[in-house]
Amino acid sequence: MHNERLARAALSRLMEPQDSAGLALVQVAGALDALGIATGQLSYGPALEQELTGVLAEHSSTASWAGLGAALKRWAPRVPDLAPERDLATMQRLGGQLIIPGDDLWPDQLGDLGIHEPICLWWRGVEQELPAAAKSIALVGSRDSTSYGAAVTGDLAYALAQRGFTVVSGGAYGIDAHAHRAALAGSSESMPTIAVMAGGVDRFYPSGNEDLLRAVANQGAVLAEVPPGSAPTRYRFLQRNRLIAALASVTVVVEARWRSGALNTAHHAESLGRAVGAVPGSVHSANSAGCHRLLRDGGAICVTDAGEVAELAAPSGDFLPDPRDGSSAVHDGLTLEDLILLDALPLRSTSSVEKLCTVAGLGPEAVRAGLGRLGLLGLAESRNGGWKRSKNAG
Amino acid sequence: MHNERLARAALSRLMEPQDSAGLALVQVAGALDALGIATGQLSYGPALEQELTGVLAEHSSTASWAGLGAALKRWAPRVPDLAPERDLATMQRLGGQLIIPGDDLWPDQLGDLGIHEPICLWWRGVEQELPAAAKSIALVGSRDSTSYGAAVTGDLAYALAQRGFTVVSGGAYGIDAHAHRAALAGSSESMPTIAVMAGGVDRFYPSGNEDLLRAVANQGAVLAEVPPGSAPTRYRFLQRNRLIAALASVTVVVEARWRSGALNTAHHAESLGRAVGAVPGSVHSANSAGCHRLLRDGGAICVTDAGEVAELAAPSGDFLPDPRDGSSAVHDGLTLEDLILLDALPLRSTSSVEKLCTVAGLGPEAVRAGLGRLGLLGLAESRNGGWKRSKNAG
Repeated sequence: MHNERLARAALSRLMEPQDSAGLALVQVAGALDALGIATGQLSYGPALEQELTGVLAEHSSTASWAGLGAALKRWAPRVPDLAPERDLATMQRLGGQLIIPGDDLWPDQLGDLGIHEPICLWWRGVEQELPAAAKSIALVGSRDSTSYGAAVTGDLAYALAQRGFTVVSGGAYGIDAHAHRAALAGSSESMPTIAVMAGGVDRFYPSGNEDLLRAVANQGAVLAEVPPGSAPTRYRFLQRNRLIAALASVTVVVEARWRSGALNTAHHAESLGRAVGAVPGSVHSANSAGCHRLLRDGGAICVTDAGEVAELAAPSGDFLPDPRDGSSAVHDGLTLEDLILLDALPLRSTSSVEKLCTVAGLGPEAVRAGLGRLGLLGLAESRNGGWKRSKNAG
Repeated sequence: MHNERLARAALSRLMEPQDSAGLALVQVAGALDALGIATGQLSYGPALEQELTGVLAEHSSTASWAGLGAALKRWAPRVPDLAPERDLATMQRLGGQLIIPGDDLWPDQLGDLGIHEPICLWWRGVEQELPAAAKSIALVGSRDSTSYGAAVTGDLAYALAQRGFTVVSGGAYGIDAHAHRAALAGSSESMPTIAVMAGGVDRFYPSGNEDLLRAVANQGAVLAEVPPGSAPTRYRFLQRNRLIAALASVTVVVEARWRSGALNTAHHAESLGRAVGAVPGSVHSANSAGCHRLLRDGGAICVTDAGEVAELAAPSGDFLPDPRDGSSAVHDGLTLEDLILLDALPLRSTSSVEKLCTVAGLGPEAVRAGLGRLGLLGLAESRNGGWKRSKNAG
């Protein structure tokens, strides 16, 4: 088990996230032999190559597959830099650790990624299992958020944390930071929020969020699949997004431009069969254009408050949104004839049954019966032999 | 034909809009005999009653059907007030007219209402056929619109009129008024906008919109199914909404509260199989809550500009929305490996192929091939034997 951990630590430095050939090799040969083969210390035969092709075909991942030889060439330049013991020591010094599939702390929902489940996770945070997907909600959006986006994110994250949800985000400026901050403020539980980083967790990046991410690590978790010292490249940002989507049952895009990394996270969530929510905003705001795009493309559901987001996490009805206004309109449920009659009733003076027949276009029997029903509902009252509308009839 | 016209004029006063029994009677017996029966001048046998039951059952409209006798009692109080010649004279004095099914001016799309097609329409406007549904778009919303709703309605109506669409609305304060006004301003064609009224068209109601509605009548049309002198009751507002929905191929709700008559129009449109659009807005605005409700309930499509609305009217692609930004991002279409390589290229200094192999985690052949591709795309350039990212690579 110790060797398995070391091997996975080394593999995570050798291979970029979602390196299909590498992930297939780990699946087929196991982490230890995969490392041996990837570093050229173990030889392999055509049978392995064939098996890898089969696994990749099964996951429709043969597009970039050019044989194991090509993959070995890709990994070779990094082999001299491997020092997994040093990486693990670095994590220990920072109070962190490495977790691998099968560990108690490993979040099972990452298994939904199939072959693209990460090899390991570098972890700084409280030693506590991550919540299941059903209790996790991803809030993502632009770095250059508006005051509207900040306010909505704050409201959502705070209220979701108060309902016992864990808020997952990416630790960036803007929407991400507002989400982490409000979740920390709103939660009385021990895992209010998780930040999934694109670069190594030895550094809290970006530096302007250093204090915030330290607080996330103290009360929640800061995770990455790349080892300490890794730079947060654009490619790694895009791959990181799949982890955010996979950890949560719902991904909500609060604000996003027409082109935005947050949309990439939403697409990952969709392809995992997770629910996607989008917060609407002004059609004049470029920062809501991406949200509206998601709503138009049909994949996302319009969410306007924490209740509606929670409902997506538990569509069984466990978290029904609060009804918008408790009192239904007083006219709900009236028959058409009674509604016509109500319209015909004067508010100030009174009217005879005969007059009501003419105004409402109803027969005398219908008018009398209708007046009786409206009277019982408190919508009509008789006065001096005539009828008028009650004050509370609106 | 003259008698048919007079009979329908009379029937429209006798019967409230969407009086199923009355409409079935007109369908079975024709307008002339229907009027005779409804006024008690013609007798009828059980065969007619049976036929009516059949017609109503066919249209699932038996809910309020209590036999023709009950209907006659409902109509009887209004019989003494019938004076269709006077009503027609009133319309003529106002420069208006009565149109009935089969007239050249009759909008065929109202036939989609089936048995609930109106008996006639009282018309003030230019003598010109109404456009087909495909060229008509309904813009509806709250009376108490916000400045946001006013701005969006103005933009939509103006741009739709400029594209040759006719804007249909209800002549009320708020969104309706903004829609009519902007359509009048935006159109160079002869039928920019149509107002469908809940009360008689002898009065331009509400009085604050009198000038506006006069302008609509001068350049477009002001219509109602109820005769001159009819009050705009709540019931008639709800029935009127089905005409707005039926006249247009698309109903767009720009702003609406959680409970709003505009949602009623949207539901009419849905049940007619017409497209429904909803304009998103701030989640903090009660005036957008009804729009978000429509988006959540799944029936409405998120629309943010006139192009997207036009697309709903012509889903065949005749009116494609303008692409949000013409230039696609420069990285679109790059393979994952090339994207990784691009990330690895320094912006200021240069890097050797060997170094790039380590940083990018790619083999030397892949790096050389990738640099060639990025160079061709203008994303990478070689300098002094090394490679750097081009300035336009973003």
